[in-house]
Amino acid sequence: MAPSPSPIATFVPVAPDSHFSIHNLPYGVFSSRSDATPRPGVAIGEQVLDLRAIAAAGLFTGPLLRDSDCFHQTSLNRFMAMGRAAWKETRGTVQKLLSADEPALRDNTDLRKKAFFPLNEVKMELPAVIGDYTDFFSSKHHALNCGKIFRGVDALQDNWLHVPIAYHGRSSSIVTSGHPITRPCGQVAPAAGSSSPAFKPSSLLDFELEMAMFVGPGNELGTQIPVESAYDHIFGLVLMNDWSARDIQRWEAIPLGPFLGKSFATTISPWIVTLEALEPFICNPPAQDPPPLPYLKEPQGKSYDIALEVTIKPDGDPKGSTICRSNFKHLYWTLGQQLAHHTVNGCNLRPGDLLASGTISGPEQGSLGCLLEQSWGGREQVALENGGSRKFLEDGDEVVISGHCKGDGYLVGFGTCSGKLEPPRCSC
Amino acid sequence: MAPSPSPIATFVPVAPDSHFSIHNLPYGVFSSRSDATPRPGVAIGEQVLDLRAIAAAGLFTGPLLRDSDCFHQTSLNRFMAMGRAAWKETRGTVQKLLSADEPALRDNTDLRKKAFFPLNEVKMELPAVIGDYTDFFSSKHHALNCGKIFRGVDALQDNWLHVPIAYHGRSSSIVTSGHPITRPCGQVAPAAGSSSPAFKPSSLLDFELEMAMFVGPGNELGTQIPVESAYDHIFGLVLMNDWSARDIQRWEAIPLGPFLGKSFATTISPWIVTLEALEPFICNPPAQDPPPLPYLKEPQGKSYDIALEVTIKPDGDPKGSTICRSNFKHLYWTLGQQLAHHTVNGCNLRPGDLLASGTISGPEQGSLGCLLEQSWGGREQVALENGGSRKFLEDGDEVVISGHCKGDGYLVGFGTCSGKLEPPRCSC
Repeated sequence: MAPSPSPIATFVPVAPDSHFSIHNLPYGVFSSRSDATPRPGVAIGEQVLDLRAIAAAGLFTGPLLRDSDCFHQTSLNRFMAMGRAAWKETRGTVQKLLSADEPALRDNTDLRKKAFFPLNEVKMELPAVIGDYTDFFSSKHHALNCGKIFRGVDALQDNWLHVPIAYHGRSSSIVTSGHPITRPCGQVAPAAGSSSPAFKPSSLLDFELEMAMFVGPGNELGTQIPVESAYDHIFGLVLMNDWSARDIQRWEAIPLGPFLGKSFATTISPWIVTLEALEPFICNPPAQDPPPLPYLKEPQGKSYDIALEVTIKPDGDPKGSTICRSNFKHLYWTLGQQLAHHTVNGCNLRPGDLLASGTISGPEQGSLGCLLEQSWGGREQVALENGGSRKFLEDGDEVVISGHCKGDGYLVGFGTCSGKLEPPRCSC
Repeated sequence: MAPSPSPIATFVPVAPDSHFSIHNLPYGVFSSRSDATPRPGVAIGEQVLDLRAIAAAGLFTGPLLRDSDCFHQTSLNRFMAMGRAAWKETRGTVQKLLSADEPALRDNTDLRKKAFFPLNEVKMELPAVIGDYTDFFSSKHHALNCGKIFRGVDALQDNWLHVPIAYHGRSSSIVTSGHPITRPCGQVAPAAGSSSPAFKPSSLLDFELEMAMFVGPGNELGTQIPVESAYDHIFGLVLMNDWSARDIQRWEAIPLGPFLGKSFATTISPWIVTLEALEPFICNPPAQDPPPLPYLKEPQGKSYDIALEVTIKPDGDPKGSTICRSNFKHLYWTLGQQLAHHTVNGCNLRPGDLLASGTISGPEQGSLGCLLEQSWGGREQVALENGGSRKFLEDGDEVVISGHCKGDGYLVGFGTCSGKLEPPRCSC
């Protein structure tokens, strides 16, 4: 792990267990009761700092931000497109403005009134217009378990150790944390003895613990982003729940992959933690054997030590049961490899595109990132702390994903990515 | 086939073999030399009618269009969102304005100068911001042939006759006709005797003859569009070439479907032919046996009689060889069924979303809609008229798709969807 940065004191109250320390400064898009226009903000402690207000006050004085209207937008796409130098300049400015010994914001009561909003009173919007959403399949543990569960084979597919496997997902149904999830209806395979498939509410509804990167500057169609410069194109990370209807997915997915089994909803956490904030938590990725092809070979592969948890809260059980403790560092393919692979055929990425990791399962039972694996294809019950158990999700269950990096006396956290399952709306 | 409408005379010269008769009036987005701002237009004969200019002149006097700024946009999304009543009102207004006995435009020299542009002098843009692009797999002939070629089995997959199979495609790499296509590089399976995959330019590059619908009004996340009202949500159709790198596709697609083998480029024709224009060409779709599940059962299934052709023009052979003659009516699943299926899980469609048909193969050899089928997996040569032959595409080949409906003394055509293959840019 890289050395932690020196602690910085801020005049904003930040509890030691807050995900949003001054070392974090994640970006989101919010609206407030007083102003329904979505605008970019930064989370600090229990507050949101309104970047539009800071920009309007003329406090972004650096050369790249000074004349930019990026914080007068309703999404972060324009800021994402500006690239790392602009992100660093902004981070430096915001960190300085929030620091205890800087009077510009601290001592300006009027501006503080306009620029700070209680986190629990704002409405979080999608942080970006997501042009395309891609979902990878980068946990070796998950891929191996799927092989055992679905094919009865204790081996990866032939391509898996060579290709960062991925598929295109649905952008329109990506929602932010807190949005209710309707149990989908759909076709499932014929029951034993029947020749006709059934149309019904999914009875095998699952979560998938994932993380996802937002793309910064993109590339032109027909060009490639080499793995060496891939990180220049990554703005930051969010938590993701790739809700999955296993019965719909299984019946439809041959031969073209997941479609309606996934496209009914995908939840992301609203705060994007930047790669700058994650730098102290860089760690080695798993060794790759066989070595990847040259276009995927990184001079120095890197992963991030991000502790992840999934808690299921049945209706009426606000404490819930934490059934999964995993870590981003279990992923086999790195962010840089995913991004380089995605463009190696000339496919163009655009600022705001979302590339997800796939289910992040670790090696132990308690680190498996979905119920499919935890219940081993529905064969075993997963015990809950309230005495109940689950093979798959029940209506009323809330699934809460959280994640954080632990610094020396502070956290760099992602907040939560949650969604509560509502009954189906189809009459079937 | 429904009866043809009575012929309407227009003051604009329209050749009898023009795709853009006054019965057509397809929508596109164009820019001109004099004004680089993209704006909506309608094709008529060899001209483009600038709808922004017509709107600015106050000639849209109907109740739905009168106060709308839909033609002052750089895309058709806002117009698409307005729905069938607005589309009909617009069509009525434009048809009247272009008719021989209506003086408003005919006798206004100033306005005609501002509102007409030669088709061969404008630049066509993407007609809509395409939020999500979905590709179906709805030709039974194509699905059967893929089964024979890839699996050596003369049978559909178990799900195919029940589920309108589809996958999510890549929006960012959709381009309009004429955009050059770069041969992609990528991973392909290990050669015989090798344990390592290769990274190289695709050597099995293919076209796919498809058509695609643009979505009009969408639906809210969590709700369904019933098959009975599906057509209210369909704006119109374009031609599509779903370029495919078969070697990349084959190695990557297990288990999550096509990804880089498709995402390097998808070409569409720039003019959207509306369902109103296609009404005279409605015909019966193929009988569906077994009957589809109730949510896919249409009161009166309908297809469209659209003749389709694919011509390959090798470098230096401007005439080229028409190697495929197919028809939209060969598709097994209808537009309504595709759209209803897409939303049955609550997935939200948005105005401007694109839903493609999949390769449109007919029953005969000469109607197979891709080289994979025509060359039977690369086993046979497909003869060209210039004496050459192809198993797959070569650099310099231009692929031109065209399509039209034949009315009584007029055509309702789609123009062309073309792309020329350029050599790979990767150094491999």
